[in-house]
Amino acid sequence: MSLPPLHIVGVVFHKFELLDLYGPLELFGMLQERVTITVAGEAAGIVVSNQGPQVVADAALHEIQSADVVVVPGGWGTRREVKNEPLLDSLRSLSSRTRYLTSVCTGSAILAKAGLLDGRRATSNKRAFSWVVEQSSKVHWERRARWVEDGRYFTSSGVSAGMDMTLGVIERLFDRATAIEVARLAEYTWHQDSADDPFALDAKGAS
Amino acid sequence: MSLPPLHIVGVVFHKFELLDLYGPLELFGMLQERVTITVAGEAAGIVVSNQGPQVVADAALHEIQSADVVVVPGGWGTRREVKNEPLLDSLRSLSSRTRYLTSVCTGSAILAKAGLLDGRRATSNKRAFSWVVEQSSKVHWERRARWVEDGRYFTSSGVSAGMDMTLGVIERLFDRATAIEVARLAEYTWHQDSADDPFALDAKGAS
Repeated sequence: MSLPPLHIVGVVFHKFELLDLYGPLELFGMLQERVTITVAGEAAGIVVSNQGPQVVADAALHEIQSADVVVVPGGWGTRREVKNEPLLDSLRSLSSRTRYLTSVCTGSAILAKAGLLDGRRATSNKRAFSWVVEQSSKVHWERRARWVEDGRYFTSSGVSAGMDMTLGVIERLFDRATAIEVARLAEYTWHQDSADDPFALDAKGAS
Repeated sequence: MSLPPLHIVGVVFHKFELLDLYGPLELFGMLQERVTITVAGEAAGIVVSNQGPQVVADAALHEIQSADVVVVPGGWGTRREVKNEPLLDSLRSLSSRTRYLTSVCTGSAILAKAGLLDGRRATSNKRAFSWVVEQSSKVHWERRARWVEDGRYFTSSGVSAGMDMTLGVIERLFDRATAIEVARLAEYTWHQDSADDPFALDAKGAS
């Protein structure tokens, strides 16, 4: 007997950060027939990333019936999207039909501004931290974390940290052995300790 | 005085592997105004990745005038592309106008089949190694390497290894300090030793 595939939804917007989205989607994709992936934006159509490459939103966010995981990336575009009420509304609505709500880098600023992290612990990219914190005073922001898990909410530090967080989500969806196998298939050395943040601004070697 | 930006070309084809391409493009993108990125396919238009998400090829490969770096990803689609003579021809032609020719994962099978790695040392994903080796007997295939640098040719092991290789290419284009800074901006722990391959099939913990 096979279970229906998990629905992974990657969110895109103008100037989203490439690796914030495709690192997680690559790792979820390693689960093969156990997942289906949809890329969704405020509207369906072509979206330009922060690095220039263009991608396709398969669907509008408001069309998504339900999701097992939603991934909200960061990138320079978050500065605009935190003021984009239709996008925030779509995310609020989708959140109620979503099992795990996740963000990478400054993606947590969008979730925070939408009120979806109220009363929750969360993190973000440390170099944009003061801007992110300004988006909501109702979030317990953590300055030192590779990623933060609080109930169904997962938020990660900058860019590559999204891959470590994703493996943490896969551990919850399946088990630890599955997360380790996915990392192995991607030849990725999983930074497994969510509390160890080598890129925190007060950490040795960071500025 | 500012130098003209380096031209980075990412190659796409049906069922290319997402992270093989966007890991490197993310890291090159951290160089900001020092690079411009073009995504190119056999033709311009929408291309479906191995994981399902669709992306846009901005240009056809034969339209690219010159490149400082070409990145050829792997993915299930390489099984078809090694027999796609128009694509191989476009890559052969572009190679003569390219400074660094690189591949991630089974992308080296495409370069090998095009004859572009003849007499060179190269590597690939270890789990697809025997298939890759069959594509050319003129390549000195290395079974244990995170990535291999031979002159202007860089080939990497599976998926995430492409990011480590890319930092090695950035070191050649600029210097080691720039590569380390790019890794820091992406919060990526650079696996700096190209010879250390924790995912080689004879390595402890791998199967």
